[in-house]
Amino acid sequence: MVAFCSVENLRQYLNTVDLGELLVGLSTSLEETFKRWEEFQLIPRVASHSTYGVIELMPTQDNQRYAFKYVNGHPINTKVGRQTVVAFGVIADVETGYPIFMSEMTVLTALRTAATAALATKWLSKPQHLDRPLALIGAGAQAEFQAIAHKALFGITDFRVHDTDPDAVKKLQRNLSALGLNVSGLDSSAEAVRDAGVITTCTADKRNAVVLHDDDLVASHHINALGGDCPGKTELDAALVNRSDVYVEFEAQTRIEGEIQQLPTDSDVTELWRVISGEMQSPSGSEITLFDSVGFAIEDFVVLNFMYERLAQTSFVSDIDLLAEPADPKDLFGFVYGSSGGARG
Amino acid sequence: MVAFCSVENLRQYLNTVDLGELLVGLSTSLEETFKRWEEFQLIPRVASHSTYGVIELMPTQDNQRYAFKYVNGHPINTKVGRQTVVAFGVIADVETGYPIFMSEMTVLTALRTAATAALATKWLSKPQHLDRPLALIGAGAQAEFQAIAHKALFGITDFRVHDTDPDAVKKLQRNLSALGLNVSGLDSSAEAVRDAGVITTCTADKRNAVVLHDDDLVASHHINALGGDCPGKTELDAALVNRSDVYVEFEAQTRIEGEIQQLPTDSDVTELWRVISGEMQSPSGSEITLFDSVGFAIEDFVVLNFMYERLAQTSFVSDIDLLAEPADPKDLFGFVYGSSGGARG
Repeated sequence: MVAFCSVENLRQYLNTVDLGELLVGLSTSLEETFKRWEEFQLIPRVASHSTYGVIELMPTQDNQRYAFKYVNGHPINTKVGRQTVVAFGVIADVETGYPIFMSEMTVLTALRTAATAALATKWLSKPQHLDRPLALIGAGAQAEFQAIAHKALFGITDFRVHDTDPDAVKKLQRNLSALGLNVSGLDSSAEAVRDAGVITTCTADKRNAVVLHDDDLVASHHINALGGDCPGKTELDAALVNRSDVYVEFEAQTRIEGEIQQLPTDSDVTELWRVISGEMQSPSGSEITLFDSVGFAIEDFVVLNFMYERLAQTSFVSDIDLLAEPADPKDLFGFVYGSSGGARG
Repeated sequence: MVAFCSVENLRQYLNTVDLGELLVGLSTSLEETFKRWEEFQLIPRVASHSTYGVIELMPTQDNQRYAFKYVNGHPINTKVGRQTVVAFGVIADVETGYPIFMSEMTVLTALRTAATAALATKWLSKPQHLDRPLALIGAGAQAEFQAIAHKALFGITDFRVHDTDPDAVKKLQRNLSALGLNVSGLDSSAEAVRDAGVITTCTADKRNAVVLHDDDLVASHHINALGGDCPGKTELDAALVNRSDVYVEFEAQTRIEGEIQQLPTDSDVTELWRVISGEMQSPSGSEITLFDSVGFAIEDFVVLNFMYERLAQTSFVSDIDLLAEPADPKDLFGFVYGSSGGARG
């Protein structure tokens, strides 16, 4: 049997725990895993494109566990009241090949994206960035999780938000004020980032947009750029990317999907795991550090295993009958039809 | 919600229908789909190898449906009472990217493999092959399904079987005699094929074995070779492959996984769909036609859609709560924690 965590079960579980503590734990688990990055099989996601959108499979494995995520991207879905992105994922045991855990991953992807960005902030920002408000460019589905992760890891409580949709800003203010966080809505990105240290850009549904201009930034910042995540979809001014110290998850994938698709293919970038593992030093002198994040399979691997460790053997998972196990592997027919031969041929 | 067909539900459904009729219907559905092969996205399977075995994802899509199968291959599993292969699969709607159906696929893979082989027999064999017994080299999990598919499509009722495991032969005789089919056990492949027309080789767990030698065959035959299906795993004498007219599913994949890995990479092969679509003529003069089958994603696509058409809206599927659908896509946080902001940050 495979342990299954449904959407409703995940909601119920998350309402029993402290989200900030959970994101700290997840960030720590990501950090430990990034240190052993070289143990993983690195496979660029397998994308099936259509005129409507894209469906992707994102597999990876280390020596013990295999994981994959199914995720789509269909911006036109919002016109018919459906989600742009839905996702689910599976962990399997590498030694047997048997799936052991299946979960919804729309919510889990939001959690791992926030925990990954906070981890990048930990390793790439300067101390003075963390004493200032955090700027959020984009008040969509990811915004609350970004704020709560940075509150939990760094104690940031002031957030300066810009979004072209005033209702999204109101939603974010409503959700975060209930947690005692301060959210100011600003009319432009330039105003939102002016007094900020860390900046998170997380907008969606835009094609080669510029939600942050180079001359919006006049001081030192760390930027987590999350919304540029597929070919032809970027968020930042190329000049800003060009003058930043750029960090990525997996260079081969980010060249195709990230902000750096605007730069020459030999531009300098550093994979984040190299900093976390100690192979490379943290940046020191640069004005702007940029984590050009597109989301990678190892992050999904981590959040699936993190949740499995917490949910296995609890009432938040149920068994699903997904795997046929005939008593005699050579008698699949007898398994289906019974040893008395119930089939009619 | 996603419709889910469990192992137990599939068993129950199969016990309500005639397996022969089902395999005829599935073979017809494969035939119709092979005719429109060029509408599909052809992606070689994505394999994650380890010291224990392999885990594969097999995706494909046409303009309407996307499908993928998860399948492992762990020969060592039998030593600990587990299956060498377990599988499950998913169909999604290409227009929305939403998964719509999930099913066990260990049994479904057996069904589609049998229906595909019978389809190859239909298009590649000669009439005189079908008046004679069918030889089965290998009496494992696939054997019953091969026999029943060829009975249903061609009226073949006599089977000549060779397997190194006498218990497997007894199992096959027990299962098939209950259906009124005649199964003779033979001591060697040469004896099994002597009076046969069609030959199916379906052995497992062997590395570059030769279960059929070139000089075992002294007449005209059609061979469905199913057991050579990964790098380093073949069943046939290279000389036999070399003198056969070879047909494959998807050449790029079969070069790596099929019997033809023993031949030069520019050896003549024909993709089966080209014969079925009328683009190429059926073979006429050749002594030996060989369908070098490794299993391809389009066959899984067909069986998943075939079953979904039959099972949707019946009691043989249940809904699983796999996809988060917040009323406001920008308020994923509110979806998880309620509009009152139940999270503790």
